[in-house]
Amino acid sequence: MGANKRIKAFGEVMMRLEAPDYLKLEQARSLNVLYSGTGVNILSALSRFGHQTSLITKLPDNSVGDAAVAYIRSLGISTSDIVRGGAYIGKYFLEKGFHVRNSKVTYSNRKESSFCTSVLSEYDLENTLQDTAMVHFCGIILSISEQMRYNALYAAEKAKQLGSYVVFDFNYRPKLWENNDAQAKACYEQMLEHVDVCFMTEKDALYILQMGEKDQTDRKQQLEAVMPLVSQRYHIPVIAGTIRDKTSDGTDCIQGYLYHDGDFYYSETYDYETLERVGSGDAYASGILHGLIRDLSPEDTVEFATAASVLAHTTYGDSPVCSEAEIWSLVNNKDVEMER
Amino acid sequence: MGANKRIKAFGEVMMRLEAPDYLKLEQARSLNVLYSGTGVNILSALSRFGHQTSLITKLPDNSVGDAAVAYIRSLGISTSDIVRGGAYIGKYFLEKGFHVRNSKVTYSNRKESSFCTSVLSEYDLENTLQDTAMVHFCGIILSISEQMRYNALYAAEKAKQLGSYVVFDFNYRPKLWENNDAQAKACYEQMLEHVDVCFMTEKDALYILQMGEKDQTDRKQQLEAVMPLVSQRYHIPVIAGTIRDKTSDGTDCIQGYLYHDGDFYYSETYDYETLERVGSGDAYASGILHGLIRDLSPEDTVEFATAASVLAHTTYGDSPVCSEAEIWSLVNNKDVEMER
Amino acid sequence: MGANKRIKAFGEVMMRLEAPDYLKLEQARSLNVLYSGTGVNILSALSRFGHQTSLITKLPDNSVGDAAVAYIRSLGISTSDIVRGGAYIGKYFLEKGFHVRNSKVTYSNRKESSFCTSVLSEYDLENTLQDTAMVHFCGIILSISEQMRYNALYAAEKAKQLGSYVVFDFNYRPKLWENNDAQAKACYEQMLEHVDVCFMTEKDALYILQMGEKDQTDRKQQLEAVMPLVSQRYHIPVIAGTIRDKTSDGTDCIQGYLYHDGDFYYSETYDYETLERVGSGDAYASGILHGLIRDLSPEDTVEFATAASVLAHTTYGDSPVCSEAEIWSLVNNKDVEMER
Amino acid sequence: MGANKRIKAFGEVMMRLEAPDYLKLEQARSLNVLYSGTGVNILSALSRFGHQTSLITKLPDNSVGDAAVAYIRSLGISTSDIVRGGAYIGKYFLEKGFHVRNSKVTYSNRKESSFCTSVLSEYDLENTLQDTAMVHFCGIILSISEQMRYNALYAAEKAKQLGSYVVFDFNYRPKLWENNDAQAKACYEQMLEHVDVCFMTEKDALYILQMGEKDQTDRKQQLEAVMPLVSQRYHIPVIAGTIRDKTSDGTDCIQGYLYHDGDFYYSETYDYETLERVGSGDAYASGILHGLIRDLSPEDTVEFATAASVLAHTTYGDSPVCSEAEIWSLVNNKDVEMER
Amino acid sequence: MGANKRIKAFGEVMMRLEAPDYLKLEQARSLNVLYSGTGVNILSALSRFGHQTSLITKLPDNSVGDAAVAYIRSLGISTSDIVRGGAYIGKYFLEKGFHVRNSKVTYSNRKESSFCTSVLSEYDLENTLQDTAMVHFCGIILSISEQMRYNALYAAEKAKQLGSYVVFDFNYRPKLWENNDAQAKACYEQMLEHVDVCFMTEKDALYILQMGEKDQTDRKQQLEAVMPLVSQRYHIPVIAGTIRDKTSDGTDCIQGYLYHDGDFYYSETYDYETLERVGSGDAYASGILHGLIRDLSPEDTVEFATAASVLAHTTYGDSPVCSEAEIWSLVNNKDVEMER
Amino acid sequence: MGANKRIKAFGEVMMRLEAPDYLKLEQARSLNVLYSGTGVNILSALSRFGHQTSLITKLPDNSVGDAAVAYIRSLGISTSDIVRGGAYIGKYFLEKGFHVRNSKVTYSNRKESSFCTSVLSEYDLENTLQDTAMVHFCGIILSISEQMRYNALYAAEKAKQLGSYVVFDFNYRPKLWENNDAQAKACYEQMLEHVDVCFMTEKDALYILQMGEKDQTDRKQQLEAVMPLVSQRYHIPVIAGTIRDKTSDGTDCIQGYLYHDGDFYYSETYDYETLERVGSGDAYASGILHGLIRDLSPEDTVEFATAASVLAHTTYGDSPVCSEAEIWSLVNNKDVEMER
Repeated sequence: MGANKRIKAFGEVMMRLEAPDYLKLEQARSLNVLYSGTGVNILSALSRFGHQTSLITKLPDNSVGDAAVAYIRSLGISTSDIVRGGAYIGKYFLEKGFHVRNSKVTYSNRKESSFCTSVLSEYDLENTLQDTAMVHFCGIILSISEQMRYNALYAAEKAKQLGSYVVFDFNYRPKLWENNDAQAKACYEQMLEHVDVCFMTEKDALYILQMGEKDQTDRKQQLEAVMPLVSQRYHIPVIAGTIRDKTSDGTDCIQGYLYHDGDFYYSETYDYETLERVGSGDAYASGILHGLIRDLSPEDTVEFATAASVLAHTTYGDSPVCSEAEIWSLVNNKDVEMER
Repeated sequence: MGANKRIKAFGEVMMRLEAPDYLKLEQARSLNVLYSGTGVNILSALSRFGHQTSLITKLPDNSVGDAAVAYIRSLGISTSDIVRGGAYIGKYFLEKGFHVRNSKVTYSNRKESSFCTSVLSEYDLENTLQDTAMVHFCGIILSISEQMRYNALYAAEKAKQLGSYVVFDFNYRPKLWENNDAQAKACYEQMLEHVDVCFMTEKDALYILQMGEKDQTDRKQQLEAVMPLVSQRYHIPVIAGTIRDKTSDGTDCIQGYLYHDGDFYYSETYDYETLERVGSGDAYASGILHGLIRDLSPEDTVEFATAASVLAHTTYGDSPVCSEAEIWSLVNNKDVEMER
Repeated sequence: MGANKRIKAFGEVMMRLEAPDYLKLEQARSLNVLYSGTGVNILSALSRFGHQTSLITKLPDNSVGDAAVAYIRSLGISTSDIVRGGAYIGKYFLEKGFHVRNSKVTYSNRKESSFCTSVLSEYDLENTLQDTAMVHFCGIILSISEQMRYNALYAAEKAKQLGSYVVFDFNYRPKLWENNDAQAKACYEQMLEHVDVCFMTEKDALYILQMGEKDQTDRKQQLEAVMPLVSQRYHIPVIAGTIRDKTSDGTDCIQGYLYHDGDFYYSETYDYETLERVGSGDAYASGILHGLIRDLSPEDTVEFATAASVLAHTTYGDSPVCSEAEIWSLVNNKDVEMER
Repeated sequence: MGANKRIKAFGEVMMRLEAPDYLKLEQARSLNVLYSGTGVNILSALSRFGHQTSLITKLPDNSVGDAAVAYIRSLGISTSDIVRGGAYIGKYFLEKGFHVRNSKVTYSNRKESSFCTSVLSEYDLENTLQDTAMVHFCGIILSISEQMRYNALYAAEKAKQLGSYVVFDFNYRPKLWENNDAQAKACYEQMLEHVDVCFMTEKDALYILQMGEKDQTDRKQQLEAVMPLVSQRYHIPVIAGTIRDKTSDGTDCIQGYLYHDGDFYYSETYDYETLERVGSGDAYASGILHGLIRDLSPEDTVEFATAASVLAHTTYGDSPVCSEAEIWSLVNNKDVEMER
Repeated sequence: MGANKRIKAFGEVMMRLEAPDYLKLEQARSLNVLYSGTGVNILSALSRFGHQTSLITKLPDNSVGDAAVAYIRSLGISTSDIVRGGAYIGKYFLEKGFHVRNSKVTYSNRKESSFCTSVLSEYDLENTLQDTAMVHFCGIILSISEQMRYNALYAAEKAKQLGSYVVFDFNYRPKLWENNDAQAKACYEQMLEHVDVCFMTEKDALYILQMGEKDQTDRKQQLEAVMPLVSQRYHIPVIAGTIRDKTSDGTDCIQGYLYHDGDFYYSETYDYETLERVGSGDAYASGILHGLIRDLSPEDTVEFATAASVLAHTTYGDSPVCSEAEIWSLVNNKDVEMER
Repeated sequence: MGANKRIKAFGEVMMRLEAPDYLKLEQARSLNVLYSGTGVNILSALSRFGHQTSLITKLPDNSVGDAAVAYIRSLGISTSDIVRGGAYIGKYFLEKGFHVRNSKVTYSNRKESSFCTSVLSEYDLENTLQDTAMVHFCGIILSISEQMRYNALYAAEKAKQLGSYVVFDFNYRPKLWENNDAQAKACYEQMLEHVDVCFMTEKDALYILQMGEKDQTDRKQQLEAVMPLVSQRYHIPVIAGTIRDKTSDGTDCIQGYLYHDGDFYYSETYDYETLERVGSGDAYASGILHGLIRDLSPEDTVEFATAASVLAHTTYGDSPVCSEAEIWSLVNNKDVEMER
């Protein structure tokens, strides 16, 4: 799958402003700041696994944009494909929950950002997408505006033409679609025509694509009923995602699934505790992509991806920062408490 | 119950100085600071539930007093009834425990505070207590000094005369009474003559009021045996409190009870984890008061109050900061991890 | 001037996100946060001088709006006139300069804020502006949009009708007007018809109102030539502002002027050093307004206002936090280093 | 002067709670904490100059007392003479000023502290003061209460009996004496009977001791007129202090004086800038004491002491932390910016 | 066992640089700093139990060394036996793990430290080891260099000669021995000749000393098989250590063992949660030593030591800071959540 | 000068551990951390001026090395030429001075770092130095060891062979050479044979190279006497540096000089204040290099470089972070206080 080529993502960078120490915003006099996004997170992880990565986005040409660029660069992602201009960056405020108190995310001015108001001609896609192994897209982009849908669909088509794999993550957010399910379905379907690797849950298939029967109480059975249909209809050879649950004593647990060339593969089920919830799905996706690029067996791929996701719950920030070795070490379950 | 009138509390404001990050005081080079008190906590919660609240207290007329006033104001409590003068504020140092290491509270100069050395003539109670729906008192006030007992009893009587409900929380601290149980009993009984809503445990009845038989091993049975007696003897229609326990696997849990016009109501039992222990009882009390003012059913009232208390364990600071919606959401058990 | 009535401001609240310790944004992993605005700053100062104040604005009905409300409340400003709704708050990023490195302000999504997209019908102005001594407006509001200009002009007219003084601060920002000076002139002139107290510089008169001759090299002579013309043409009895300069050895200095019923008054010239630059002009304005309400002599008024501004340079945050006593103490030049 | 014996101080330890970053208390959500006192400061400096030191005081036997003891120990002072018991520590809040805004100190519950309520019998002075070269007392102790005056006078007398030098610092605070100058004079005079080394200004002589004529406009002339009288009347061979002034361009400057066996010695005049104002006088005193113990020439002694004071303005905290070498290096004016 | 004599340790001080808030080093812009070491930790705990302690080590004569000395002093340990000189201090970086993510320790320049490059003649051991009850050595010292092995063996022998007990903790780190097990065995055996109290696990006996049969699956049975052999061969009357395990629901638990004059004693098994992993073994050792010095029964000793270790998991820093009373309170299982 | 080619530096990366808020190390419980070095600093600045840069160094293959790499990447410097391996990074501790208190730098284990123990064969210089416009070397490298001298001389020679300019900064530190001036002279002279651009002062020429007569009291005259000799003897067309001084009122000032193809050019003299002293010389050097690469006039080059240095005093960290526009803005002296 073009192991020496760059892996890219076409996506938004957001500024995250987090109240520290489990405070509510009204209690905070300082906010932790970082810069993230689905694409950023995927590429951050892949950089740590040894891949050359680059983000295609647009950021304002001011101090805030400079700060975002420096942060992304520090993650190991090339910023040479980033266009500078426009006025704003999307932002989100994060109040971390504690036990029964949920985390709360408040978005701010996402649609007015430099990226979300950009037009295709600003990106030199013809060149940018040359010699690229994969390009990643996040479903949120489809909900922003007519222009952004156009940008995404065009870029995905162009990537495919130029020989790149197209990776897509459903990331469906009903609020952003203002519950206009019909429009969402149409947009997702257009995108799926170009997609080679897709991250989604059985609910995405049932409720957005309106495929299959909602007749299974068991999630795995539901998955196994509906994913082959999705794969077939949209010609997508690889579909993957996670199943989150709770054990009988209330502990969170997670299992990864991978539908690959007609077969289902499942990881072990891992208990997890959460220092950071945001970005753990992206860590999973990055693990799957790593397995695909490195030609790992599907069994190893889904195991690695799930361990990557579990570890992403244990590190600060949206963007995964664990190394390949740390992830394999969890897979191999070396039960040491302290490495000296 | 006078839903449009203000709810007030006559009580102390203390400066809390907390060693951060689970440090012991000797390890800390900075201390987190906030201002609280039983009355402050109750009113903070009620403000968030949409009530007009005001604190009656006395604070020094210096920078420290200014800081306390600004903090209380930020919680949504009116500070127009606060008298300024005297020299000091009471303080307490908090070292947060971790697992088997207990939290440790060290009080400092409580009895020398502006409030605890104030005399009644400084408060224009005749005016201040007009058009007030409820006035809240905390039992600790009775232990400070002869003068403070007089202040509290007079203010409670005056509130009652002017048509306000009198709310009282036992908050019995043996150390403060120097184990002089007889004196405590006499003082509490004088206060109870004016009380309409009382927060207490079965132990308060058994050991302070010396009512009932200590014959039950089951706390609920004990409650149900003794509270009707308390209600009857002191003409208190509403008594409420919480029962804290541990589940078989060591998890903390809590259940609320409400004795209301002759009947017992219990909430569900909730597991909880603790970011902040202080103030969770006050959150419970505020939930009960909210139910009474809004004429909620006793069942809803006790459920709301217990959920309020559970959530207060999950937020920083003594004073509850969760909204009514957040509390109902926990009652209705919407199991989402992240609100976006 | 209605000393017992409330003083109000109709204006925007912005979230300020400041890189700490003179860092550039790209170096910061946390940002100090506060909430301010010209109206907020004026009212914060006046609250400390003993006036009842209230802010008329609109803030989003989410965690960010809650945080802004709590902050404003902590400053001593009533928040009961604040409308809640819409989606966003305006923001600005602040990188504090050091010596020859200038401070840098980057605005973000100001025009999309709840306030800047609000319509008049959302404010119950008929009631809100009753029994109000003064209402303050900031010139920036005129640059935002047609709707905001309409809102401001209507509110100013209504305030006047209801017997309130109208206070206006030019606060001209060429960038926000996109250098459309003709439009700016027209808008400012419409506003000036309602104004009783105006804060401006001689440059505002020369370049925006295009009055007077740019023939004076000395700023005071220029002021004295042009302000009587402004006062006369727009029937504004009180005009005030500051003259900033540097002494021969490079120290910053400031002098206040007050044109009052036909006469000019000047304060002493004060050297100042800057911990915080933002909001010092608002501190000056608040000092003038305090003098007017309290019927101080013009000489005392301008001296107090200038000292207030000098002190505002020495405290953290946009909103002045010094007391009346602290300001008089500077006027009276009590040269103590440490108050014990 | 007994160079191998311990140097001790009989004095109070206070907890200092400082609003960080030039904030006012009402703006601070955390406070920097340290433990200091005139005696602590003197001994901290002397420890760094190579002397064995020990503090005689009383601290509460709780977490707060533990924290104070650990802090004092970290400064290099022996804590083996500290008595534990009582309930409280004295506290002071510090709001650091900036330029024309003065620093503000708010004391809290000083008179109720363990030390200020202690009685002599708690200290085993007979043993504690054996083999002691010097014992230091601060004048503030005389203002606290009848008991404290008794404690101090008795301890000073006992120290003298046991062969120790008695060092006394006037540290006159009119507020603490509630302007009862007659009482102050009597107390100070009783103390001076035991004193060998005294730190004071010409104002202390003129206004407290009511000696000399207030006829000199020049401070040095006034000093030279009055100090020989003080020395003679109370049999005090060594008197020292500082003269603070401003240079013509507003820079702060300081000069030390030393009256030693009938002659006056002055240091150079040093410009200084202030990171920390508190404790700089104690640094000066410690420098003089070091010179006396080490038998330095009076010229070197006063120079070293003044440089110590100048450097104490440049380090965080009340207690001096500069080494002897750093101070000599300033005296010798090695103008390097960076030591590598 | 010489209860009034000092307890000493001959060992290294390291600077610990810890990424805060569970960050990885690459995410941290500030690091928490403290100074520790096996000897420091043991002595810190023993100081809190009321013993006179002193550390024998060498630290550089610069700012870094000063900082280490001040820190050790603040823990209550005498620093008068510390030699100053050389250039460096050993350092270690700590990234705290979270749940399945392990903590990671990265050592830096340990072998180049002032202590690890010191020679025996720099320590005045003849005097330093007089009147000493116990001297503690850590096994790591044996792995550093030929010189350090010589230093340790000589000091242990000298201590023994001078009537002190020799305490030794295996602390075997395969990495430091570069897996040269034969050399390790030889060195450990030489040391054991001088040892009176030894901390070790059954694995140390099996794999380093190559004693006993690795035939037991149960750790206690293995212990009971091999420790009597160790005791006998090397004439060590007291051997102790801990057994860490997990309960069926994954909770960490710990049990202490003590082999004392031929009998085995075990503590209760305690669940624990971990705020701080480093130093908990040293807390155990300090508890055993305290019991030995105070002549507690072996049953009480092992219980106290295990509780000390459990509590050390709940406090910040390598060096134990809990008091004797806090530890007994855990032993006696007073289940209070908050001490007021 | 090959404007499209990369600019590289062959040099060390050090971890800087700084006590915050002007604390001494012994007062700090956390240290600010960053990664720098002369080469890093030069390249950081040049990256901001739009050049492609890359650092050639060796860093340990552990968490500490990862952190350094991420930091350098965030500055905009390519890390693809960095070799990973060895065990340590050099470190330095920084205590920032205040006014007369000097800053203090304490180096730690510099000679044992991965870079300082590396050998040439680890760097693929033949490839790395292809298509490189310039390679920068710092004189400190020559003082480390025989091996490092060999590495530097070989790399410089190789760079020259491959068509790159060689840039050299004297950075003479007597301590590192242990005052062996003869050895220093020999090493510097060997290096100078390869150098095209050299940063040095007249003292370097007089005392290290032992050229010229120490007969001038005026620094400029001395410069003008000796630099042409240096240029001639070693065939170095470009020599540059700064002259630091104090104005009559004690303000620090700086002037840049540039000796370029036989002529002297001087910048204006700039006053400066210091937030950060370290790295300001590197900022100057980067400005000169930028002018050379962009073919600016010598007059503009020296002015730009001096302004870059002045601004580097005003930003946190060793590595310059100001943009080209910010620097020109200072040159053009646009006296605005706040950019909005």
